[in-house]
Amino acid sequence: MPNTQEGQPGRTDVNTLGEFGLIHHLTKAFPIRNASTIKGVGDDAAVIDNRGLQTVVSTDMLVEGIHFDLGYTPLRHLGYKSVIVNLSDIYAMNAQPRQITVSVALSNRFSVEAMEEIYAGIHKACEIYGVDLVGGDTTSSPRGLVISVTAIGQAKKEQLVYRSGARPGDLLCITGNLGAAYMGLQILEREKQIYLSDPNIQPNLEGHDYLIERQLKPEARRDMIEAFAKAGLLPTAMIDISDGLASELHHICQQSGVGVLLEESGVPIHQDAQFQAIDFNLDPITVALSGGEDYELLFTIDPKDVDKVKYMPDLYIAGEVTPADDGLKLNSKGGKLHEITAQGWVHFKPNA
Amino acid sequence: MPNTQEGQPGRTDVNTLGEFGLIHHLTKAFPIRNASTIKGVGDDAAVIDNRGLQTVVSTDMLVEGIHFDLGYTPLRHLGYKSVIVNLSDIYAMNAQPRQITVSVALSNRFSVEAMEEIYAGIHKACEIYGVDLVGGDTTSSPRGLVISVTAIGQAKKEQLVYRSGARPGDLLCITGNLGAAYMGLQILEREKQIYLSDPNIQPNLEGHDYLIERQLKPEARRDMIEAFAKAGLLPTAMIDISDGLASELHHICQQSGVGVLLEESGVPIHQDAQFQAIDFNLDPITVALSGGEDYELLFTIDPKDVDKVKYMPDLYIAGEVTPADDGLKLNSKGGKLHEITAQGWVHFKPNA
Repeated sequence: MPNTQEGQPGRTDVNTLGEFGLIHHLTKAFPIRNASTIKGVGDDAAVIDNRGLQTVVSTDMLVEGIHFDLGYTPLRHLGYKSVIVNLSDIYAMNAQPRQITVSVALSNRFSVEAMEEIYAGIHKACEIYGVDLVGGDTTSSPRGLVISVTAIGQAKKEQLVYRSGARPGDLLCITGNLGAAYMGLQILEREKQIYLSDPNIQPNLEGHDYLIERQLKPEARRDMIEAFAKAGLLPTAMIDISDGLASELHHICQQSGVGVLLEESGVPIHQDAQFQAIDFNLDPITVALSGGEDYELLFTIDPKDVDKVKYMPDLYIAGEVTPADDGLKLNSKGGKLHEITAQGWVHFKPNA
Repeated sequence: MPNTQEGQPGRTDVNTLGEFGLIHHLTKAFPIRNASTIKGVGDDAAVIDNRGLQTVVSTDMLVEGIHFDLGYTPLRHLGYKSVIVNLSDIYAMNAQPRQITVSVALSNRFSVEAMEEIYAGIHKACEIYGVDLVGGDTTSSPRGLVISVTAIGQAKKEQLVYRSGARPGDLLCITGNLGAAYMGLQILEREKQIYLSDPNIQPNLEGHDYLIERQLKPEARRDMIEAFAKAGLLPTAMIDISDGLASELHHICQQSGVGVLLEESGVPIHQDAQFQAIDFNLDPITVALSGGEDYELLFTIDPKDVDKVKYMPDLYIAGEVTPADDGLKLNSKGGKLHEITAQGWVHFKPNA
């Protein structure tokens, strides 16, 4: 019996559509059948109504060899991160995560002690973020480790913030700083290559604690959601920065039907990430735009709310929302306008 | 940098604990922090309260090479089945599934057309069972295909049926028939081996349609849940039969603190499965007890409700609930009592 999915006529490589193109292509024909389904595919999380209180659901899968390398990822950190990336999606809806389910597939090269390490990390994340582990699945895999987490959150209907609410004139805000997780990954990869070429050389990670922690043990911005509530601020649109600022800007602009003008000088980049980018011959703003895995929040606010964010710590105003026709533009420190592409890479074609 | 999880002192093989032992071992230290969390790990699904209406959540992961073999599993059927196995868990709580999320990890040997086939199966299941696809994740994998589905359902608090409600004297009921999915798998495996030994021999699956469909394209028993509602029947305990009758009986008995007396003559086995078991030199009752993947319902009812089930089609009374001290027993057609072990295998030690 031949393998059914190979050698078919009309074979289209999965990479031709890109991740978001593929998800859209596969899910666009799914209608909504239940009145309780408020929002399906296409935001940070799905929204389900329960008589006014709305349930928010998000899911993410981490695959060994794609999302993590056990050569430099402690299992405990991996468990922790697998929860964080999902909680981040719930916060990006301006909701509170309450429960998670965790499914783990692993080969027999993993011991019970290895599983305990993963769950110790999951336990820590549950403790810190106040969520309950309520279910899951543990199964074998022929090789490699796969972790799939689903997070369930809750918010009042009127508190939820979608990707689609940005309006021209709104201010663009970013929390924390961008690019550090990516630079941490570059350091880990470099040291791994050095180790592989000569196992007698011990990896030198000294002085890179901040960047490496941003990569291996990220946090989700619960503090920001709580600060919003305290300040009485409701962003007009919000998304978490998991794939890089450029990609998230495209999501906001597509779903809100707007454009954006991003100020390079307004994009927060940690000093360590700046130095490290230069050390790797990379442009720091490019790293911030396309690096990913920062799990910071990108959101837009009505300009009348500017006083509410002005003194919020760790929050930066980085540009403004423009009409859709103006497209997605970066105003560089040199004062030139560059187009921001969906792939996250800035093509340096100065605008006429 | 050595791989962190290998070569550690005190390495315990994952198989020593068994799947349920491992889940319990890893999740027992997770406390419940949110008032909305009614039931966490340990039933067919978790239960989350929303002001009286309760949300039910279940998740299952299917891994290539462990749960399915693409040598004989059409991708469309695989997509369908990946949804069904989760809906079955929701029905086993006496709840209605409403939404699903689907995460797929796949290597680049899969084409867009292959993904479309998987999603066509998911689409069909959503259509037939009236559920909404509301989210998910599509990602690469270094090799192989992994599908993780989370199903979300809803029920009024007083309608939910847990594994823990069985009481001595209750009647034990089984829907449909058992063992057919397992026999279908045996046929598919046999024909695959024949094909592998000589690719010129075409697989001969003729006459085995029923068994093969039970394996490749199972259904979930929504019809039974609806029949219960119509008859005003509330089972005292319920579970879906995914790992084999023996394993599910152990779950019910452990969580309800009871024993069970199962009548071999009351266990429904389809004629095709009977014949095929004998053809494979297997005892049909052993196949029913340990085969798995039937996605039928096992439930217990108060004896005063017997009139409500007596004329329900496709439903069989197969024994009764006993005190915990009596253990789990099978009364064979020969009139002998055998112990039912957790692994599903009946050891033929006649009771004194």
